[in-house]
Amino acid sequence: MHAITISEPGGPEVLTWTEVPDAVAGPGEVLVDVAASAVNRADLLQRQGFYPPPPGASEYPGLECSGTVAEVGEGVTGWQPGDQVCALLAGGGYAEQVAVPAEQLLPVPGEVELLAAAGLPEVACTVWSNVVMHARLGEDELLLVHGGAGGVGTHAIQVAKALGARVAVTAGDDDRLDRCGQLGADILINYRTQDFVATVKEHGGADVILDVMGAKYLESNVNALTTGGRLIIIGMQGGRKGELDIAKLLTKRASVAATSLRARPLEEKAAIVADVRERLWPLVEQGTVAPVIDQVIPMSNAGEAHRALDAGGVFGKIVLAAHS
Amino acid sequence: MHAITISEPGGPEVLTWTEVPDAVAGPGEVLVDVAASAVNRADLLQRQGFYPPPPGASEYPGLECSGTVAEVGEGVTGWQPGDQVCALLAGGGYAEQVAVPAEQLLPVPGEVELLAAAGLPEVACTVWSNVVMHARLGEDELLLVHGGAGGVGTHAIQVAKALGARVAVTAGDDDRLDRCGQLGADILINYRTQDFVATVKEHGGADVILDVMGAKYLESNVNALTTGGRLIIIGMQGGRKGELDIAKLLTKRASVAATSLRARPLEEKAAIVADVRERLWPLVEQGTVAPVIDQVIPMSNAGEAHRALDAGGVFGKIVLAAHS
Repeated sequence: MHAITISEPGGPEVLTWTEVPDAVAGPGEVLVDVAASAVNRADLLQRQGFYPPPPGASEYPGLECSGTVAEVGEGVTGWQPGDQVCALLAGGGYAEQVAVPAEQLLPVPGEVELLAAAGLPEVACTVWSNVVMHARLGEDELLLVHGGAGGVGTHAIQVAKALGARVAVTAGDDDRLDRCGQLGADILINYRTQDFVATVKEHGGADVILDVMGAKYLESNVNALTTGGRLIIIGMQGGRKGELDIAKLLTKRASVAATSLRARPLEEKAAIVADVRERLWPLVEQGTVAPVIDQVIPMSNAGEAHRALDAGGVFGKIVLAAHS
Repeated sequence: MHAITISEPGGPEVLTWTEVPDAVAGPGEVLVDVAASAVNRADLLQRQGFYPPPPGASEYPGLECSGTVAEVGEGVTGWQPGDQVCALLAGGGYAEQVAVPAEQLLPVPGEVELLAAAGLPEVACTVWSNVVMHARLGEDELLLVHGGAGGVGTHAIQVAKALGARVAVTAGDDDRLDRCGQLGADILINYRTQDFVATVKEHGGADVILDVMGAKYLESNVNALTTGGRLIIIGMQGGRKGELDIAKLLTKRASVAATSLRARPLEEKAAIVADVRERLWPLVEQGTVAPVIDQVIPMSNAGEAHRALDAGGVFGKIVLAAHS
């Protein structure tokens, strides 16, 4: 088969479409003929050498895929060759085939196209595990999403609105903010021209914040929280160490959590995928929540996709088609 | 009636046993003839002028009491004059009588003496709301309690052991650590001579940390957490602003929360008191969890009690008897 390999840590040019040994489904795993993968910011870090795959994971990049079941390994029940699926991966999605623990598979929901489904597993599991399972966003609560126009952001808007919450988003230009509004976001904040803390406070403060900036926004995020607020940090695009005002946190009875999906043990991923399938997938089947795909690029040209994500301006996800 | 008044912000000498207007039970409130109150660190801050009572609360210090119901206000059901009770207060416990919302009353449990019961409500509601309701300490998880010999600490040890968890405590001398061990603590750490992070890590890291130091311990506490760990800060004896290593938090999928009890709205206090009564009180009735009282001092001499708490060396709670 072919896969994208990383010849050495570096820029997009180190991503090479290469002939590699075929993937093999071990016990409890399913072998998927990959239709598409999708690009995550973590892939860019992995390419640069900053985010090595966890032990046991494929060394090729790619944290999600869609495709067709080719084979099921020993002991796998519930999946058959020919099933159209998408999957949360610890790596290896940028390839023609990938072996994945059966618990990380999801059916392609309803009317969603097979290629587009490649852009769902990471955002679905990230948003659901953090905003719903961890922070328990309530009806009428206010969710603030930084990077509202990104893959996670565009998905979080739809999920939060489906749950009856209000949504504020930040983004860097008005065009993409408008598109966030079309997805249902109630409060649109251009971080280049507006103070998100002041705007969110005018609306009573945020009950939950989903943040990708880390240190740079830590103080502001705590300021933007309301009583009982929950800040969840899932990215550190603005640095890793920040000053925490514990007195402010205490007065608000608020909390700060930081999480990632990839390094979790299989049983935690399985629990998240199961809850996503049970509670979120019906919303996707109905079309209430839909994948937001910016563009589809041939997988062999993954470097171009990385350049595009790095340049900014992407709305939603970039999908990598394995066969073009 | 008499109450302790604060003549002006200052040292223990500003606490004065003074004739004041009688307390009156409003609608939904119960008037309690106070047998005893107990000293909390927040009382020392209030005396110094740093922790004003929340709006509507009594201006006299005292966040808990025990006593006998004297009168029930309009609309109160479930309590009768003569009932022996203890209560979580927003203030006013250092007095011969206090009016308290009915939802903040608890019966004096089982064999507990009326005076000793004054030392239960604050520690019970603090430990239960944070360690059980918020952090959901699990069986076989490791709880680290800073200030294990204090009121909150001695209570937390007993509650966590009753729930089947393991408990590590820090304290500043071996004698008090031994007494923590007698209460059930498994891992005894003298913070003057031992590195609590290293010791806790040898035992797999802490699943939950109950902290009163704030900024001073923030970095060490995050280091001492294990994967999925929850740090709960309920005091800031070591300062309010500290550096948070978000990358470390993210790698551990951990969280930091800070809370207080006094400023919560009535409905939250009521929910905590109700859960304490339903799930913790049976453990107190059985004697599995008992009040730990260091000494009983006449309430009129509250300044002496404040001096004792400030000096350190207290094991458990100091009770203030209203009638001596």
